[in-house]
Amino acid sequence: MTRIHNFSAGPAVLPEPVVRATQEALWDLNGSGLGLCECSHRSALFEDVLASATQGLRSLLALSDDQEVLFLPGGAQTQFYQIPMNLLRGGRATYLDTGVWSEGAMREAHRYGTVDVGYSSAPVYPNVPQPGDVGELPTGTRYLHYTSNNTVAGTQFHHIPQVPAGVWRICDMSSDIASRPVDGAAFDLIYAGAQKNLGPSGLAIVVIRRELLEHCDPDLPTMLRYGVQVKQTSMFNTPNTFGIYVVDQVCRWIQDQGGLSAIGARNSAQADRVYAAIDGSAFWQGKARLDSRSIMNVTFSTGDAELDTRFVKQATAAGLSGLKGHRVVGGLRASLYNAQTDAAVSALVDFMAEFERANG
Amino acid sequence: MTRIHNFSAGPAVLPEPVVRATQEALWDLNGSGLGLCECSHRSALFEDVLASATQGLRSLLALSDDQEVLFLPGGAQTQFYQIPMNLLRGGRATYLDTGVWSEGAMREAHRYGTVDVGYSSAPVYPNVPQPGDVGELPTGTRYLHYTSNNTVAGTQFHHIPQVPAGVWRICDMSSDIASRPVDGAAFDLIYAGAQKNLGPSGLAIVVIRRELLEHCDPDLPTMLRYGVQVKQTSMFNTPNTFGIYVVDQVCRWIQDQGGLSAIGARNSAQADRVYAAIDGSAFWQGKARLDSRSIMNVTFSTGDAELDTRFVKQATAAGLSGLKGHRVVGGLRASLYNAQTDAAVSALVDFMAEFERANG
Repeated sequence: MTRIHNFSAGPAVLPEPVVRATQEALWDLNGSGLGLCECSHRSALFEDVLASATQGLRSLLALSDDQEVLFLPGGAQTQFYQIPMNLLRGGRATYLDTGVWSEGAMREAHRYGTVDVGYSSAPVYPNVPQPGDVGELPTGTRYLHYTSNNTVAGTQFHHIPQVPAGVWRICDMSSDIASRPVDGAAFDLIYAGAQKNLGPSGLAIVVIRRELLEHCDPDLPTMLRYGVQVKQTSMFNTPNTFGIYVVDQVCRWIQDQGGLSAIGARNSAQADRVYAAIDGSAFWQGKARLDSRSIMNVTFSTGDAELDTRFVKQATAAGLSGLKGHRVVGGLRASLYNAQTDAAVSALVDFMAEFERANG
Repeated sequence: MTRIHNFSAGPAVLPEPVVRATQEALWDLNGSGLGLCECSHRSALFEDVLASATQGLRSLLALSDDQEVLFLPGGAQTQFYQIPMNLLRGGRATYLDTGVWSEGAMREAHRYGTVDVGYSSAPVYPNVPQPGDVGELPTGTRYLHYTSNNTVAGTQFHHIPQVPAGVWRICDMSSDIASRPVDGAAFDLIYAGAQKNLGPSGLAIVVIRRELLEHCDPDLPTMLRYGVQVKQTSMFNTPNTFGIYVVDQVCRWIQDQGGLSAIGARNSAQADRVYAAIDGSAFWQGKARLDSRSIMNVTFSTGDAELDTRFVKQATAAGLSGLKGHRVVGGLRASLYNAQTDAAVSALVDFMAEFERANG
């Protein structure tokens, strides 16, 4: 059965070799005679998978020895509350407001302390702050939180925001984790839903610096305590074993592709092609400010909602799926995560040209 | 590749037709050209899966119109805190203490109110209370909580405990949900990790009576509010779409087998065969009290830890996997969830006889 071109913003396209390996593993994991979803999470069989996925992320994200990798239930939205519940504790934190997901994170944090908005591009969110745009943080700030890529607006940080000594740097990398070389060691806490660049939905990846564990609220539900999850290597309860397997496979696939520098180069080249198609014609409008354009989610429009709807409909009929913009903002969006193929990008660019000829 | 006999306590054996269907769907979900883990949870494609899984559970559990089905992150242990966080609110609840999992649920509940132990078979937990064993509940009790099947001890309720009017009946059905006909409408809240009888790990199924939503704490993290999850049909965030698909397939498979009466009869017959092997020889010792024996997890022992270890080792070599008892109690355990095959049970009973001849 032929698969169609998939531009879904998430859950999103996976590398075909990973899908093939997962199909095999579902029936028989690594020659064990047991299916991937049917073996104990405490078996040596699965512990190998967990160790490999952990090591895969450590290596890709260039983590240091004092950082721990966790696989937790839910997605980024579980971290929206778990982080401040553990780490805010009545203190204050600065959030950079760059879109729907930052807003969501701020909404949950209010319950646990004071939220300072260090920067906001609301309500349209065409950009993220550039170096120097964020002023001094209030005295006593515990952490700075930002969303490195904004799927709805199609914007992305291309630098790591500065924090003064003693302030933790926390980043929601849900939609651009492991999409380009990153200095993972610069972060005190990284989190990401797996379902964009790394795997299926229902799994949150958390990287936490060990020192932070000493500052977590000790009187929380056991499942929500980072320290417990670290001690139990994400197995205080039965984790999403399927998801962890897929993440491991994706990490291996990234290495096979040449690692994050190769992946990042391909991701950039793909985005460049779609942005060139937009910029090369007065018919198309890009939605993100030039300095903030995302290489993961290209947002654009014809400037006419009805025409956008027609584009989505005709694209779908032509085998290009998932090009509708997020329901909050409308318009069009092409998501170009790690597993996006050059063939899909070619098909998109061709289809855009064809649509313009017919409707321009 | 031949699969081996799988007696894992969870994640546990799945029906082979379900594994086959899931393999296909991973590549192409229902002829869409999109893989199961690669399509938007908000697409009509996935919404059909969610609706079907919901309807499948409604039908199997004989739910009434005022009960809602949710698919939430994590497993039963997320519900250990989410339930009292929402519903205890400084009040009191009675827990029936029948093993490791009841204990875990009680430990989390303490944080939100008063926990009364309505019955306990600690520390060995050879049995669950029988009708009449639980006395009157304290005035003001909000709910009665019990664990219908105890995987570690190998015990199971074969009746539904009575509650006075106005007291909610809450049941952790993680390890026997949809394993026999059940009057689901008798419960105000049912929860279960999917990874025993219904699907993969990383997914909690929750059934909640709508009336309870009015009594939930409104000031909780959004993800943890049952009312929000009901309103958003489990899609406030991106749910575990893979897990929901597998649950739907298992529900369909159960109906194909003749529904819960047929499944329950087969489950009982399988357990009867293993218990008969235990009772038919002085070599084997059953661990659960006769009136409390589980048809899901048969716990037994030779009475000699070294011999038990040898049994596990030789059984594994003979292609019978997962027979080691839970690490807390040791001994042996055969888990016989819905997808367990008669062939595996025959192999187990034969192997037990052979092992007894060699070591008895």
